[in-house]
Amino acid sequence: MPPRYSSSLRGRLYWAILGLQTTFILVFLFCFHHNYTVDVNSLDLYPVFQDVNVIVILGFGFLFGFLRKFGFSGVAFNFLIAALGIQWAIIVDTLLFKDTTPAIGLTSIYTGLMDVIPVLISSGIILGKVNPLQLIMMTAIEVPMFSINRYIMLNQLKMEKQVSMMHANMFGAYFGLAVSWLITPPSVNNKFNKEKEKTETISELFSVLGTLFMWLFWPSYNALWITSNTERRNAIYNTYFALAASTVTVFSITTLLNPWAKLQMNLIRNAVLAGGVSIGFTAYMLQHPWIAMTLGLLAGLISTLSHRYLQGPLNTVSFVHDTCGVHYTFGLSGLLGGIAYALLILTADYSTIGIIGFQAVVGVGCICLTLALSLTSGLMTG
Amino acid sequence: MPPRYSSSLRGRLYWAILGLQTTFILVFLFCFHHNYTVDVNSLDLYPVFQDVNVIVILGFGFLFGFLRKFGFSGVAFNFLIAALGIQWAIIVDTLLFKDTTPAIGLTSIYTGLMDVIPVLISSGIILGKVNPLQLIMMTAIEVPMFSINRYIMLNQLKMEKQVSMMHANMFGAYFGLAVSWLITPPSVNNKFNKEKEKTETISELFSVLGTLFMWLFWPSYNALWITSNTERRNAIYNTYFALAASTVTVFSITTLLNPWAKLQMNLIRNAVLAGGVSIGFTAYMLQHPWIAMTLGLLAGLISTLSHRYLQGPLNTVSFVHDTCGVHYTFGLSGLLGGIAYALLILTADYSTIGIIGFQAVVGVGCICLTLALSLTSGLMTG
Amino acid sequence: MPPRYSSSLRGRLYWAILGLQTTFILVFLFCFHHNYTVDVNSLDLYPVFQDVNVIVILGFGFLFGFLRKFGFSGVAFNFLIAALGIQWAIIVDTLLFKDTTPAIGLTSIYTGLMDVIPVLISSGIILGKVNPLQLIMMTAIEVPMFSINRYIMLNQLKMEKQVSMMHANMFGAYFGLAVSWLITPPSVNNKFNKEKEKTETISELFSVLGTLFMWLFWPSYNALWITSNTERRNAIYNTYFALAASTVTVFSITTLLNPWAKLQMNLIRNAVLAGGVSIGFTAYMLQHPWIAMTLGLLAGLISTLSHRYLQGPLNTVSFVHDTCGVHYTFGLSGLLGGIAYALLILTADYSTIGIIGFQAVVGVGCICLTLALSLTSGLMTG
Repeated sequence: MPPRYSSSLRGRLYWAILGLQTTFILVFLFCFHHNYTVDVNSLDLYPVFQDVNVIVILGFGFLFGFLRKFGFSGVAFNFLIAALGIQWAIIVDTLLFKDTTPAIGLTSIYTGLMDVIPVLISSGIILGKVNPLQLIMMTAIEVPMFSINRYIMLNQLKMEKQVSMMHANMFGAYFGLAVSWLITPPSVNNKFNKEKEKTETISELFSVLGTLFMWLFWPSYNALWITSNTERRNAIYNTYFALAASTVTVFSITTLLNPWAKLQMNLIRNAVLAGGVSIGFTAYMLQHPWIAMTLGLLAGLISTLSHRYLQGPLNTVSFVHDTCGVHYTFGLSGLLGGIAYALLILTADYSTIGIIGFQAVVGVGCICLTLALSLTSGLMTG
Repeated sequence: MPPRYSSSLRGRLYWAILGLQTTFILVFLFCFHHNYTVDVNSLDLYPVFQDVNVIVILGFGFLFGFLRKFGFSGVAFNFLIAALGIQWAIIVDTLLFKDTTPAIGLTSIYTGLMDVIPVLISSGIILGKVNPLQLIMMTAIEVPMFSINRYIMLNQLKMEKQVSMMHANMFGAYFGLAVSWLITPPSVNNKFNKEKEKTETISELFSVLGTLFMWLFWPSYNALWITSNTERRNAIYNTYFALAASTVTVFSITTLLNPWAKLQMNLIRNAVLAGGVSIGFTAYMLQHPWIAMTLGLLAGLISTLSHRYLQGPLNTVSFVHDTCGVHYTFGLSGLLGGIAYALLILTADYSTIGIIGFQAVVGVGCICLTLALSLTSGLMTG
Repeated sequence: MPPRYSSSLRGRLYWAILGLQTTFILVFLFCFHHNYTVDVNSLDLYPVFQDVNVIVILGFGFLFGFLRKFGFSGVAFNFLIAALGIQWAIIVDTLLFKDTTPAIGLTSIYTGLMDVIPVLISSGIILGKVNPLQLIMMTAIEVPMFSINRYIMLNQLKMEKQVSMMHANMFGAYFGLAVSWLITPPSVNNKFNKEKEKTETISELFSVLGTLFMWLFWPSYNALWITSNTERRNAIYNTYFALAASTVTVFSITTLLNPWAKLQMNLIRNAVLAGGVSIGFTAYMLQHPWIAMTLGLLAGLISTLSHRYLQGPLNTVSFVHDTCGVHYTFGLSGLLGGIAYALLILTADYSTIGIIGFQAVVGVGCICLTLALSLTSGLMTG
């Protein structure tokens, strides 16, 4: 049962949603035209896009819908944010990355879908701590911030598009943590959180369903933005190996951690994806699957162990609370992937050290940027 | 727990199903041969076909499976009707639309899948009011009726194939309403229906799962029959925008309607698809996404408000009972789409006003035809 | 709630899983290199591969997850076995079928996915009777056994690759039965099994979900390995007809068998897939859909009736216990398909009777081989 909101919030929520939708339609009416030249190869990618669509609408919805009290609202708000966010992301993206006139096409929807992923990751951290209006405000701020982030990486730091897209995982996780840090009142923290983290077998099964869909279609997510066919093949191939290795590792670690060797679904659910996240930056260029598997193994290890041992202390000390354990799946694994990316480029090619320095800096710069921006947004939502 | 039927019904049901299946095999044995020329491009469309397959078998099954007493039978009978109906539709279609000799191929399965959709929509209206034998009889009658409907549109009224296919939504909704009008006994109406509409959280979640799958793959449904690549791209693109806009609108309206701003899943479930239905006729030819979004917004509005305010009065006055609220999703939205289609053609092109008159008439003619045919079938099932 | 294992098992399980994963990485590091020539057309098949991926990870997991006590572990162990098994299968396959140097590519993952299917089918039979360590040992033995089986068929008996792949269903079923025969203690058989077969409505619904996904994507499973486009079209087309016919038949038979005409989900769940399994060997070469439909009808009949009437006597007499009724879906239907394959080849072509004799023998030889191998493995796990 979702919480009952006050009458004034209800009225504001109603107008906020409808007002945004009307504004979006007006922007599309007056600013955009449809351009077929944007859409080269877009139909070939349609099945891959549908896989990512399943990840975004269904996967995130059910993955974060595993808390009993927020089961329904988890799925519903994920859906609302995605539907609103995609339109907003298309507007922001088209205006920011336009050449001469703002033109949109089927590819714009693909981009919009990717831009909405950080928002959904962030919402997993603060689920149950904010009201819907705050979630919508967060969406309104986070989407352009991530676009600006990508714009800086693409135009200033000459990053490749597919790599810039993959910062979504890390951006979402640290943005969400910063918001969570500001809005969680320290005093009620512990009691409040315990109650919210109760789960139920049924919603647990739905959550497993969401996880499995994300696991299945994660190779598509890592491959959608790659233009070369050989590199896309590489990305699918390496992501699959990384996911398999991280899954096996997570099962092994959870067996060890639990005194009765019971499989702990909450750990497994979060950690099996870690391999896919960690390989995001490098999947397209790895030549040897053993590197992908090693990354997957490390990501599984880090994600599971940190979830098990860090969540308690982090909550007590820093008052940063992470409802769904998002930090361990998307944050740390993304960080690991970024480090691996920098290392791999350094070992691969010594001649262009200047550019490489830039690229390594980008990973760190991105996080700093994110944290700074998220503090502002946190204050606004709070 | 499904209701227990009498022994005589059981025997008849058994023979009806097995008899139909044997007859189908004999018809395929003596009348059809396989023709490869039917199958140009059919493998390219296979992923799109699979999306529609998920909508038909899984989406409709779980969408209408949300009533506690009929949960299982909802899914099971949907499955049975689809498996029987596809074979029946292929037979009817091949004989009706044949050139010289009746030839079938992979494309015939795609057509059969689309022809079965009106039956599944109708079954959502009368679910829990008929026994399986009546459902099978309805399938046997509705499939050829819809094929005749499409035949008249294609050959007499020179409609395009993709547009004629999209009449499935409206046809199914009004056919089902007519059947429901005849078979619902007025006296037991209110009490009987209340009891049947009780839902449970678990089946509610499965129903949400079904809805999400339908939402995700609806662009494929609108795009399957379009032959030009540019138009298929348009259809996917506009359907996505219409779905997003209608989703946002529905969330907004349900927030307003509910005194505690609780999200009403039964309204949301039905109405989010309205945008996709309303864009069905026009998706392939719209050049501007704002038109698609406006249609989606209107469809969301109409669907939600009519579901909220019309269901009670309609039940009391006309004794037409709609178990799953199908009329508001598929009927009214289809009607809106038909009107939009006529308006858009009128504004687009003044020179060929003769043909346009025909096309506008087709939308209305189709509904009249449907209602007339469904009354006959209702009398037969009753 | 999964059973609680002893501390020593826990420790061994942990090391076994992590040890295997590390070994796999080392094998990939030292033995394999990535070869792009392996990957012709692999991206075109990616959507079809994803369908099979859904069958393997999600379909089998939820299909066998319908027992209340093993719901969670059913899904989890299926996932673990798939993730481990795919890597193991790639290693075995690459070393066994290598030309000069062991090269891997995206296609290797497709092969690995297919090789893991027999293991998942076997695990459905012995679910709840073995501990995870025994499951992993079975995986370690069954994967190379199936590869050797395929190697003999391909290189000694000149079987086509797509046909050799389709022996997976039969191999898995009879391997599992042999293991089950050895490990089930006769005395506790009846009481023990009754308790384990209790199901719950919710897990039943998840199981239906798994079945529906398998039904939807089974044409992709039968078509993945076919190289010619015409034959792939045939395979999709015939599999769909066989599935539809077997579904209708199963509904009919279960109606007759039940005194209250209640739909028996446990029968339906297992038997609807029988049509797809039975058509596996022949789908690519059938010219007439009525043959596919007849095969589907027969498979549905055999599967349902044998499940209903043979399970009791078989358990009592031979102490072979089959937790999920796998034998009736995959074993007998595969046998039927093998016989149909031999008959069809015999009727199609009399000139090459020598090769045909070989091919008919292969079906029988495969089962003998399987049984012999499975006895050894059963002794090892026991």
